[in-house]
Amino acid sequence: MHYTTNPIAVRYGETDQMQFVHHSNYLKYFELARLEWLSQMEISYAQMERDGILMPVVSAVVNYKTPLFFGDTFQVKVILAKQPRATLDFEYEITNQKGEIICTGSTVLAFLSPKTKRPMRCPDFLLKKFN
Amino acid sequence: MHYTTNPIAVRYGETDQMQFVHHSNYLKYFELARLEWLSQMEISYAQMERDGILMPVVSAVVNYKTPLFFGDTFQVKVILAKQPRATLDFEYEITNQKGEIICTGSTVLAFLSPKTKRPMRCPDFLLKKFN
Amino acid sequence: MHYTTNPIAVRYGETDQMQFVHHSNYLKYFELARLEWLSQMEISYAQMERDGILMPVVSAVVNYKTPLFFGDTFQVKVILAKQPRATLDFEYEITNQKGEIICTGSTVLAFLSPKTKRPMRCPDFLLKKFN
Amino acid sequence: MHYTTNPIAVRYGETDQMQFVHHSNYLKYFELARLEWLSQMEISYAQMERDGILMPVVSAVVNYKTPLFFGDTFQVKVILAKQPRATLDFEYEITNQKGEIICTGSTVLAFLSPKTKRPMRCPDFLLKKFN
Repeated sequence: MHYTTNPIAVRYGETDQMQFVHHSNYLKYFELARLEWLSQMEISYAQMERDGILMPVVSAVVNYKTPLFFGDTFQVKVILAKQPRATLDFEYEITNQKGEIICTGSTVLAFLSPKTKRPMRCPDFLLKKFN
Repeated sequence: MHYTTNPIAVRYGETDQMQFVHHSNYLKYFELARLEWLSQMEISYAQMERDGILMPVVSAVVNYKTPLFFGDTFQVKVILAKQPRATLDFEYEITNQKGEIICTGSTVLAFLSPKTKRPMRCPDFLLKKFN
Repeated sequence: MHYTTNPIAVRYGETDQMQFVHHSNYLKYFELARLEWLSQMEISYAQMERDGILMPVVSAVVNYKTPLFFGDTFQVKVILAKQPRATLDFEYEITNQKGEIICTGSTVLAFLSPKTKRPMRCPDFLLKKFN
Repeated sequence: MHYTTNPIAVRYGETDQMQFVHHSNYLKYFELARLEWLSQMEISYAQMERDGILMPVVSAVVNYKTPLFFGDTFQVKVILAKQPRATLDFEYEITNQKGEIICTGSTVLAFLSPKTKRPMRCPDFLLKKFN
């Protein structure tokens, strides 16, 4: 299963003095892609949090290939890397308007109950959406 | 009443491709100065929020004089502009390591009760600290 | 003259622990709206910078009315507040998906030649676009 | 070889609505630690860039253990993971004021000549500093 965002324009404030998009922003791009995907599947992460389920990022990896610049647009492809259980494992690929691969990466998200502050299994309604 | 922060180094990720510190960061510098001041007065804003008092920014003004660059350090002077009542009114001046004025500005903060989602008067313990 | 962006989804990383979009982000939203407008007028700010013209922000004002939350979408309306000369003066209004006014504001931008590091008049090609 | 920053206070704007420091900020904390270390070794990265040497991040890994909150202070320990050659390989550990490990991670930085836009070997003056 995978999802690709529409083209997104680089924001000026995302650049740094090297004229590249600052490398920390790619984690934000990964995040917006996976939350947009959930939203497309009619899963509201905002509602999930109100219902008491947090999905903190447990680990993240980014491999930077070539920079994004102001003036570029990019798309994020997000792939469900394995069957959800105690974690959601996503892989990512960001490409620019020329189809060049900007970076690849992955994140692991856990499910956390704010009441117990402890990890919990992937909720059933999420499992169903991903099956 | 006023308070001045220790010198703070510009962070690389705060620059943009113009090589200047991005202009939105000055609002963050103002914020860290006023919260550090509260902290020095032994007012924990973290605790205030847990006690149900929010202090959202109602208005902000920034006048940019000369840029900050990576490699620079800066200090923020924050001044209580008037006696607190329904709002906290602060004025700011940021200077770099040469004493040049980087920017001036002001913010107005309200007190908000998250239960009623309505404005409230400045809490007494805060009033006392500022008197 | 004015321009309104398409609806833009709030990004999770733009929220703070008050659950509001952090107040510094509105300056970034203003920026993306005015640069998108320039882009729609076929003015590439990226190219302007390569040609040696910088447009630093000289002053900014934001009046916050009601918060934006994760899950919301917003539109930025940007208005040319007066005839361009030594500065570009914009006014802004951000509204959410319900049409509520989130904030209003204004910015003044100067034209700066990186060679002389001095202010310059609004370039002719820009003047023509705004006339 | 390793270096540990002084305690740094979490900034309010670094939190997200989960009340945690947003996970993208750890890459910024890693960055400020390594640049502060260079600065302590009397290597000015600002000057390096003016001399035409860029050090883009080629890859990054973060393993998140427990969150940082507003009100916390943290220290970043940065370790030179191997002898510099074509890349600088750093490992990181962030701890909070109680000594709890917040996250660990690593980054690989390349040396890039902006003239040729191509990778270059670690400059001699940097090699000497690290030996």
